[in-house]
Amino acid sequence: MHGYNKSAFIPDWIDEPPKEGSYRSIFKWGDPKGFKHPNKRLYDHMKEALELTDNDFKKRENEGHEKVVCDNPIGLDHVHIQAIQSIVGSDNVTQDGYSRVKYSSGMTMIEVNTLRKKGNESVADIVVHPRDKEDVQKIVSYCHNEKIPIYAYGGGSSVNFGHMPVKGGISLVMKTHMNKIIAFNETDQTVRVQSGMMGPAYEDALNRAPENFSAKNKYTGGHFPQSFEYSSVGGWVVTLGSGQQSSYYGDAYDLVLSQEFVTPAGQIKTLDYAATATGPKINDIMKGSEGSFGILTELTMKVFRYMPENQKDFAFIFPDWEATVSATREISQGEFGMPSVFRISDPEETAMGLKLYGVEGTMLDKLIQMRGYKSGKRCLYIGHTEGEKGFSRHVEKMVKQICKKHGAMYLTGYPIKKWRKGRYSDPYMREDLQDYGIISDTVESSVTWSNLHNLHQGVRAFIKSRPNTMCLTHASHFYPQGTNLYFIFIAKYKNIDEYKKFLDGIMDVIQQHGGSISHHHGIGKMFGPFMEKHLGKEQMEVLRALKHHFDPNNIMNPGGQLGLDV
Amino acid sequence: MHGYNKSAFIPDWIDEPPKEGSYRSIFKWGDPKGFKHPNKRLYDHMKEALELTDNDFKKRENEGHEKVVCDNPIGLDHVHIQAIQSIVGSDNVTQDGYSRVKYSSGMTMIEVNTLRKKGNESVADIVVHPRDKEDVQKIVSYCHNEKIPIYAYGGGSSVNFGHMPVKGGISLVMKTHMNKIIAFNETDQTVRVQSGMMGPAYEDALNRAPENFSAKNKYTGGHFPQSFEYSSVGGWVVTLGSGQQSSYYGDAYDLVLSQEFVTPAGQIKTLDYAATATGPKINDIMKGSEGSFGILTELTMKVFRYMPENQKDFAFIFPDWEATVSATREISQGEFGMPSVFRISDPEETAMGLKLYGVEGTMLDKLIQMRGYKSGKRCLYIGHTEGEKGFSRHVEKMVKQICKKHGAMYLTGYPIKKWRKGRYSDPYMREDLQDYGIISDTVESSVTWSNLHNLHQGVRAFIKSRPNTMCLTHASHFYPQGTNLYFIFIAKYKNIDEYKKFLDGIMDVIQQHGGSISHHHGIGKMFGPFMEKHLGKEQMEVLRALKHHFDPNNIMNPGGQLGLDV
Repeated sequence: MHGYNKSAFIPDWIDEPPKEGSYRSIFKWGDPKGFKHPNKRLYDHMKEALELTDNDFKKRENEGHEKVVCDNPIGLDHVHIQAIQSIVGSDNVTQDGYSRVKYSSGMTMIEVNTLRKKGNESVADIVVHPRDKEDVQKIVSYCHNEKIPIYAYGGGSSVNFGHMPVKGGISLVMKTHMNKIIAFNETDQTVRVQSGMMGPAYEDALNRAPENFSAKNKYTGGHFPQSFEYSSVGGWVVTLGSGQQSSYYGDAYDLVLSQEFVTPAGQIKTLDYAATATGPKINDIMKGSEGSFGILTELTMKVFRYMPENQKDFAFIFPDWEATVSATREISQGEFGMPSVFRISDPEETAMGLKLYGVEGTMLDKLIQMRGYKSGKRCLYIGHTEGEKGFSRHVEKMVKQICKKHGAMYLTGYPIKKWRKGRYSDPYMREDLQDYGIISDTVESSVTWSNLHNLHQGVRAFIKSRPNTMCLTHASHFYPQGTNLYFIFIAKYKNIDEYKKFLDGIMDVIQQHGGSISHHHGIGKMFGPFMEKHLGKEQMEVLRALKHHFDPNNIMNPGGQLGLDV
Repeated sequence: MHGYNKSAFIPDWIDEPPKEGSYRSIFKWGDPKGFKHPNKRLYDHMKEALELTDNDFKKRENEGHEKVVCDNPIGLDHVHIQAIQSIVGSDNVTQDGYSRVKYSSGMTMIEVNTLRKKGNESVADIVVHPRDKEDVQKIVSYCHNEKIPIYAYGGGSSVNFGHMPVKGGISLVMKTHMNKIIAFNETDQTVRVQSGMMGPAYEDALNRAPENFSAKNKYTGGHFPQSFEYSSVGGWVVTLGSGQQSSYYGDAYDLVLSQEFVTPAGQIKTLDYAATATGPKINDIMKGSEGSFGILTELTMKVFRYMPENQKDFAFIFPDWEATVSATREISQGEFGMPSVFRISDPEETAMGLKLYGVEGTMLDKLIQMRGYKSGKRCLYIGHTEGEKGFSRHVEKMVKQICKKHGAMYLTGYPIKKWRKGRYSDPYMREDLQDYGIISDTVESSVTWSNLHNLHQGVRAFIKSRPNTMCLTHASHFYPQGTNLYFIFIAKYKNIDEYKKFLDGIMDVIQQHGGSISHHHGIGKMFGPFMEKHLGKEQMEVLRALKHHFDPNNIMNPGGQLGLDV
């Protein structure tokens, strides 16, 4: 095409776990021993799209192998540190530089970039690991009186400065001790769990309910965000996350029966009812508070029967994006139940996806071409159905029927099976790219069906107006009234400031085109400045009134979280 | 049995519409021209249960045929009345006694009892009919500055003093002018509607979407409370109502995409997204505010395809209550979709239901007896499935399968068809009974599956401890984690104070047994005093902080609503 090198050259991707105590050990996404490198086709595709050559992949930079050094002085008075130690025990307070940086860092490209350059963003004064909710209560009470900031740290996968301790103080690590299931109720299909329990341990405990709780059946939590391996049950709820199977199971918002919070204004313990008419629901008011009202200590989650044997995989290729959207809207509004994984890719992401999922070059690929589904126009739809056996089978049947009607070709379950293998490890590739100075980042937005094309075209036009920038878009959370759009943009920038400016530009364009400023990543401090314009002054004042009620001294995640105190 | 008279005597039930301007025209439930009298079997059953004879049904009392007289002075200064008139036009302000009493009254047995005795409870000073949201804005702004109470009047079917103007001021009638559909969006399956639109007009407009909005399909709102004919779309949401098909369509809470409120603190206009992660959801915070934060003027509701042709009716008789509950729990947790109407009756209600739905004495009845389902133990389950054709059929199949497994006998669709005929008119019978001094009233509660039997037994034990008192219980709103219990208690009381004391006793027992103080009737001012104990001080303080933010001068539905200002 443009004469780019499609030789047999393979970049020397890093295949070693990060060194203990290194910057890389903090910013590397996911399992320290886990790697996923771009395959050959993907590598070639990227080189072409970004106008790079093999030469650009010969020397890694800013790999972050150095030992973390943290010169930031501890701003917290020794008296306070002693007081905190006397609450949780001195073993549960750490002050070393590595801990401070680690439990102050999230996963934004800005933080990663700083860490790669041996720097750090805001750092907490001390790291505290509460043993139980009584510890949390004493800490919050003490900090409220002494006006010491508290930043809760869940799984650490925030992509918006959600737990960044911009005012210093305490990083409160929930996952160290408060990570257990408290009670399992098979009759009600609920589980009471401490907020710091991590995704895999939670799911595993439910899958093994017969052994663990003498249950009759196996269960699932139904929540599988891409950050599953490195996110906590409490984190899912306070940030309003969505799992990759949310179209069937619901968003984190929907999965919570009740919650217990410690706030400076006292403990909030909501009641276990599926529905009530007793005024505005405090249980719902607390969801999405992102650590700015108080600390979520325990919650009762809804659970579902674990029945993988009923799963029906499918994939389709559509002639174009319009047909793809129309078909999935018809499915979402069809009143026959929803598929579970439910994901459509626009033409640019489809091109990438066919490479990533290993379809390109196969017999399937040839068939797609023969049938006239043209690259640059064709779109991929992958998913599966689940639930009770007959239900799952019927949803599958309806999906096939509707897709066929809209001109799609059935691709068997092969692409979704490949997608499933990489569902949590795809982000591992971002480290590979960044080793060669390429940033892969994402923004996501909620949108109604009738505004979907407008938002998609508007955001794409802006991203693609920058030369040598990839823009892959998918929708992966479906509702009768709309869906989300998830934009992945990949480029090499002159410097981090150029990237930041570009990101701000995308956020502006999203709002100009009627998208929400987040569908499931949350707001944190990064998108806080957009909140007032997005929601309007009157709605922001409601959130501020709640903030003031719960936290009059502004110690809970202060410094711009949700745009509350800017 | 006890030798009660089972003669051919039929009480002289009233069959005339109430006289214009009479007390009866205010308190009569439903269509002025609509009547439903207890049938012969029901009448005999009631006489026996309440230990009454035909003699008790020979003389009607307190029928309320008299013209309404209202001597309550108008407390609002003439200057204020003129100012309000200048906003909405003098045609839209009424001050006559009848209007004042009518638009100050709800449907509690306490209010009905007072009206029957030619009295009135609290009465608004003036009645105002705003023409549009700009009127509402000006009125709220004026009343905020002048500290004049505002009570919104929706459909008028409150059963908890929800709009009772205990502090006088203005009764703001939303249904007179603000009763229209503003926009219909078939792509998004949403409708923008003014809050004062009444149930039947709303549903009819959606059913006729092809004619009204050039839509491709017919639609339904999916919300059918027993008060359907006399409730407004806005009222459904601000009181957190549930329709009789909520197990399939969701509660009012679930049906709302966005809302627009006028509050003293400004206008709140939430955004149209199916889901977002932009902090606590203001759209949800406003739901259930029962007029105490501001006036709901417009809302975007989700709508569904209207496909009555796919409906599958069913009914079953179970050997006992335990089996009924176990079967319906299995259905609710079955992950094959939910039935739409979904209603189980305990043994005492079943006995009544078999009479009410005309099953008793039929071939079906003989078959039930032959198969050994014993009166006093057996329980009725009626319902239907809907949605897409294959989905509806499959849910029906699964329901049948599960019921059979739990020992139930299939009764065809006959009982549900009979129930459907009377679904809105059953409450009409309460006027007949009250004409002879009998009060039929209801309380309802939310409960988890694991606490259902405890709550049912506790409340029944209390109600049945009173001699000659019927207690009919059903569950009619189902979730994977629980359901509601709806208690109907019928008795003759010495006086209204005895009834009030008894009602308070029931509410105490509900709480002692872990039920919520409302599942879908709301709180109003009647149950306000129970709120703080029920939710706890910390949760009440959150609601009060919101109240204070929206309405610092306490003009919005003041005087105990939701227990906020007691």
